[in-house]
Amino acid sequence: MGAVKNKRMPRAVREQQMLDAAVRTFGQRGYRAASMDEIAELAGVSKPLVYLYLNSKEDLFTACIRREAQALTAAVRAGVRPELPADRQLWEGLRAFFTHTAGHPDGWSVLHLQARTHGEPFAAEVFAMREELVRFVTQLIVVAAREAHRDPSLPAREVAGLAEALVGAAESMAAWANATPGVSARQAAATLMNFAWAGLGTLMQGRPWTPPRAAAEV
Amino acid sequence: MGAVKNKRMPRAVREQQMLDAAVRTFGQRGYRAASMDEIAELAGVSKPLVYLYLNSKEDLFTACIRREAQALTAAVRAGVRPELPADRQLWEGLRAFFTHTAGHPDGWSVLHLQARTHGEPFAAEVFAMREELVRFVTQLIVVAAREAHRDPSLPAREVAGLAEALVGAAESMAAWANATPGVSARQAAATLMNFAWAGLGTLMQGRPWTPPRAAAEV
Repeated sequence: MGAVKNKRMPRAVREQQMLDAAVRTFGQRGYRAASMDEIAELAGVSKPLVYLYLNSKEDLFTACIRREAQALTAAVRAGVRPELPADRQLWEGLRAFFTHTAGHPDGWSVLHLQARTHGEPFAAEVFAMREELVRFVTQLIVVAAREAHRDPSLPAREVAGLAEALVGAAESMAAWANATPGVSARQAAATLMNFAWAGLGTLMQGRPWTPPRAAAEV
Repeated sequence: MGAVKNKRMPRAVREQQMLDAAVRTFGQRGYRAASMDEIAELAGVSKPLVYLYLNSKEDLFTACIRREAQALTAAVRAGVRPELPADRQLWEGLRAFFTHTAGHPDGWSVLHLQARTHGEPFAAEVFAMREELVRFVTQLIVVAAREAHRDPSLPAREVAGLAEALVGAAESMAAWANATPGVSARQAAATLMNFAWAGLGTLMQGRPWTPPRAAAEV
């Protein structure tokens, strides 16, 4: 308790250390089981200092969610080079996403599991990040459709549905990849890219899969 | 409060009425805000009878999750005719899934949102259902690969990843379709089928999308 007492360390640096310790503890133990004692100890500060800086366990958890959400969306945006063709942009976005979730498994656990399973205010924080990812993917699909046709035939609603599908698939695969030994970020990205791009690609070329029209299907 | 007092009604029927009322209340109000008074009133029984039959709010919620999870997996299994080719099986499975989630929006909200956002024991119930859907989809992909080649080249790990991606995409799209006015179950199923099948289809034909090998990509 309070083992480290370097008073010259700026508050911002100390806060980041507390958040590092909190993300690790929440991600590994779960929100309920994580204790403020454990987080303070791991951060090398006293528990009162954690409360002084971050106020409460709820506020600390919210700060963790915000930081990890911003880091993830920033990593995806930084991974994409907008001058490239749409398939390359999508590939780079997926690689950046899976590289980040693989490199920050505790952060991903906080976002994908912990923040969603402990009530509304936390879930709303993650929802905001998810909306940003969906907007980003929607834009990529619109650009891809524009590259394929001058007059894209994909209606806006279908694009929105595809973006939701792709983000949901990426979330699900990131959880699976982190829980499955030996699956690299590149493999996860390549599997999803194959799934998504070959599908989107044929859609863009105006060759959709068409539902059967048999009598039993009406 | 206790408006209906038909003592001849069998316990099993009464319990289903309580669960109907509970799913509707939990799905629309959320787990925390839902009150046992409201559920009893909606079910037309007294609150003590709800406690007598279902024990506690936690147990009632768990019973809701189990019933809705079983109904969803049963609907998907019943929708699929195993004698058809893999693409038709997948199409029928997706149609059955989205028809069920569209027809039971409160049940889907309980499974996809409420059960995941209120702690571990509830999340574990949904996880079990999800595992069953993933196994089912995995089997469909394996059958599809066997139809495409006698000696399928998709490694087991890639199949597992594709199944996770597809289930995650379906969950995400169901939430979006239920929240977006005018999106029918058939449209949601067709959008995801296009996305998934055209992608899986080209994979099965041994024509994967291949990552670029530029120097900057290593």
